Order: sequence, then C-alpha cells, then structure tokens
Amino acid sequence: MTRALGVDVGGTAARWVLLDGDREVARGAAPGATGHPSAAARARLAESLRLIRGALPAAPDAAGFGITGAGIPPDPALTPILAELLGLPETALWIANDIVLAWHGAFPQGGPGHLISSGTGSVGVAITAKGPVVVGGRGTLIDDAGSGAWLALRALDLVLRDVDEGRAETPLHHAFAARIGSLERGAVTAAIYGGERGEVARLAPAVAEAAAAGDARARDLLTRAGEELARLVRALDACAGPAPVALIGGALALHPAIGAAFDAALPGHTITRPGIDAAATAARRALTLTQTRTP
Amino acid sequence: MTRALGVDVGGTAARWVLLDGDREVARGAAPGATGHPSAAARARLAESLRLIRGALPAAPDAAGFGITGAGIPPDPALTPILAELLGLPETALWIANDIVLAWHGAFPQGGPGHLISSGTGSVGVAITAKGPVVVGGRGTLIDDAGSGAWLALRALDLVLRDVDEGRAETPLHHAFAARIGSLERGAVTAAIYGGERGEVARLAPAVAEAAAAGDARARDLLTRAGEELARLVRALDACAGPAPVALIGGALALHPAIGAAFDAALPGHTITRPGIDAAATAARRALTLTQTRTP
Repeated sequence: MTRALGVDVGGTAARWVLLDGDREVARGAAPGATGHPSAAARARLAESLRLIRGALPAAPDAAGFGITGAGIPPDPALTPILAELLGLPETALWIANDIVLAWHGAFPQGGPGHLISSGTGSVGVAITAKGPVVVGGRGTLIDDAGSGAWLALRALDLVLRDVDEGRAETPLHHAFAARIGSLERGAVTAAIYGGERGEVARLAPAVAEAAAAGDARARDLLTRAGEELARLVRALDACAGPAPVALIGGALALHPAIGAAFDAALPGHTITRPGIDAAATAARRALTLTQTRTP
Repeated sequence: MTRALGVDVGGTAARWVLLDGDREVARGAAPGATGHPSAAARARLAESLRLIRGALPAAPDAAGFGITGAGIPPDPALTPILAELLGLPETALWIANDIVLAWHGAFPQGGPGHLISSGTGSVGVAITAKGPVVVGGRGTLIDDAGSGAWLALRALDLVLRDVDEGRAETPLHHAFAARIGSLERGAVTAAIYGGERGEVARLAPAVAEAAAAGDARARDLLTRAGEELARLVRALDACAGPAPVALIGGALALHPAIGAAFDAALPGHTITRPGIDAAATAARRALTLTQTRTP
C-alpha cells in the first residue's frame, strides 16, 4: 500500500493528513502559506512544509497539494521546491490551486461539475476536458460579489452614507459599531485599511446579525449575495455547458438567506453543498497519480 | 514685509511657493510625502522639506502647509517637526490637511462654503464656526463615490462580468484592454493590485474614452459620478446648512458629463469651479497668521 500526504495550504493554516491507502494515519495543521512567487512567500511555504514533515509519523510515497495563490495551472516552479522539501521525486507530486483541489473534493468521480466557493472572496470553477474555466475571484476591489468581504463592504457603504447624511440608526449601524468599536471616521478606516487582507470579511457577521434583528437592508444584501453566487453558475453554464452545482465556503454559514437565494435563482439545477475534506482529497489525488503510473 | 513659504504636500509631489507680501518670489516642486505618523512617512516628509529649504532664495518668516493625510484637526506632532526643519518658531506655522487648505483656496474670504473634491478619491468639507464637517473620503474600499478610482472600479466590474459571461465586447472593454494590455485575468489583477494606491484611478480615463466612443454604460457611469458628488453637497447641507458650493479635482477633467450631472442634481445651489493655487493659499494663510499676531 502507498502512503500519501495531502496538504491544503491556505493563507492562515496549512492542514495536512497522511493516508495509508484508504486509512488515515495522522492529521494536523501548520502555519499558513501561499503559492505566490515572492521570496517571503517561498520562505513561509518552506517553513510550513518543514514543520509538517517533522510531524509525520512515517515518510510518504506521494503527496498532493492544494495551495492558495498557486495559479491555474499551478506555477511550475513549485514542483521542484516541494519535491526537495519532502524528499520525493517530482513525479510523486500532485499540485493544484486550492480551488481546483476543492473541485476534486466536490466531484470525486470527476466532472462535469460547477464549484462555487464563497469565503473571504468568491469564485466559480468548472474543470472540463479543455481544462479549467474560472469566473469571478479577481479580488475585493473589482470582483468577488457574494463573498464575505463583499457583504461587509456593501453594508458599510450603506451605513456610512447614513452617517454622512445624518439619518437614523438601524440594526445594521449597531452591528457594525459593536464590531468596530464605533462608526467614527478614524475607527472605521483603521478597521478596513489597518489590518490584513482578510480583515474586511471578518466584519461580515455584522450583516447577518443585523438581518436577524430585523434589518431589511441587511436581509436584502444576504439575498443579493446568494443571487450574485448564482450568477457565477450561469457564467459557467455559458462557458462550459450546464452541469451539477456544488456550493461551498465559510460565508454560507453567516445566514441561511444566502443559500436560499442561491437555490431560488437556479431553478432546474442540481445543487449540493458538500462538506469537503480538502487535505484528504489532496492525498487521494496523489494516490491516484501513483496508481495511474503503476502498471 | 513678511516672507511666507506655502507648501501643498501631496502623495506624488510637494509644490511650494515663496511670497514676499503679495509678490511671488520663487516657486518649485519636491518629492511627495504625507502626514502619516509612520517612521517611513516622517522620513519622506523631512527629505522633501530639506530639498525645499535648500531651493529657497531667502529664508521665510512664516510657513503654511496643506498636507495629505495630516488629519482633521492636523496631527499636533507635525508642528515641532516642521518648525525644526525650517528653523522657524512653532507660532510662525499654519498647518492643515490638504482638503482644509483647498477649502481656504476656494473660499478665501472665509465661509460659509461647501468644498467638493474629486480626484483619486472624493470628499466633501465645510468649515463652520463649530469646526470642519467632513463627508465621504474614507477611501476606495468603502467610500469615495464619484472619484476617479470609483469610476475605474465600477466600470471594470461591468467589463469583467461581461468577460465571465462571454458577452459581446463594447468600447468600454476596448478602452480598458488598451490601457491594461489585455482583459486576461492575470493582467487585470496585476494592474489593480500590483501597483501603488493611486494606480486604479489612472485607469479612469478609459471610462471617458469609452463614453466618447458612444458607450452608453460608460456615459451613465460618468453621470452617476456627478450625482454621487452632488450627494456629498446634500450631506453637507444636512449637517452644516446650505452654502455656496465649490467643485474641484482632477477627475472633473475626465469628461464634461461629470460636472454637468453635478450641476443638474443641485438646482438652486450656487456652484463655482475655482482653480486653486494651493501652495499660494498656504503661504497667504501663514501671512494672515503673522498679521493676526502682530498688534
């Protein structure tokens, strides 16, 4: 039997699992990293992988990776780096972007399938015979509608217009003021521009809290988030043909209105919300690779 | 007669003028800086001021500053720093945020007055007996509607939705593709996230170019920009009472539709578009300060 390591490398944590065939041998987490080509990012990736290698109870024969920011197709420079860090031949490695890995987790038998993910950002991907098709996912400034960051930014825009125009406060104001500390100019700009990239999305629960307190505009934004995610499905339908849809991501847990609006906007589509074990999926991809190469 | 130095410190350039009473003695520009409190920002400010001091044909008796990012009211830590750099007593300095300086340039006789500025960002300010009132201007992610960056981001959102959904190309697509190099995912994200803070606003002329080529959505965005800037006036009306309006900023030069929509949205308001010599305004503020103190 072949031992396979699977690693889901995200910005805040790298989660790993070691499989021996179908059996899970060990599981853990290391500091996050990305596939970005900068020297600092490469150093973080190496440190994370060294910690994982040190925690393994036995050396793997193969390894699979889903790495945020690795690119579609993944940066080929990652292959020799990861091979050396794990002491494995390059042919024993399966490397993908985190969203491509999630697609394999959602469609373990292969496609056709459309994966929609809504977390800090939002993105849609279909892996077809011609290769991956990606829609959305270009980041908070120009894209990512329906994501946690999008929800927080759209809601804050409404709240700050009210503040400037001296309008009465609503549950949406109170929910943001409670999370930020106040709606005063300096406090708001520090909360939005002072922190890490994912900081903005951490304010998204304020929208769900306001909706739960009866705020109609907050509720409407959650509905619009689901409709925006449904738009990604229609874009994939147009580019890659209709297919079963899998909806995943942390933003869905904010409020059931997001998923309900998504379903309502896609009549006639087959929709699932799979729970994905990304690290185990990566390990299984690596096993498949080994089996394919073995006669 | 008193010699007064005036400096308009912006992110990309610090423009200065030396007045002897009403007479301009010299004028020039040094590298940009900000009033942000970080060590790196303070070093840039000091370097810029050292270059300006070295270029002066005669030592000033007073100095006035409008400094981007200095805050409203301005960070008091700036006073001893600027006094030491120019070898002047702290009482000979007038220091303000750049937008407060612009307000004095637009309303040299004092208020009441509402200043609306649209450049990379957008902001409205009224200086009243109770102090300054500021609306908008919280940066690209949550505010700044009607600014150059806002125009570019809104237009790109439209274009990228078309790209994802495989819709036909329009002049707006062509204008952005020409400026960015292509509408391919990597090229677009590099153009938006790869550069300096002001990089996004540099794409705003694409919207005006597309409008000139007959693109209805581009034209509509320019109109909406003017309407959003008019909204800042109404917010100031609500907080500080109605007053004459001055509209300034580089974004207005993009296309006449912005100013036309602004005017149309504000019937009954007195609106001017003053050309402001910010450095000379700062020098005159410093002169006033000296005259006020002299019996």
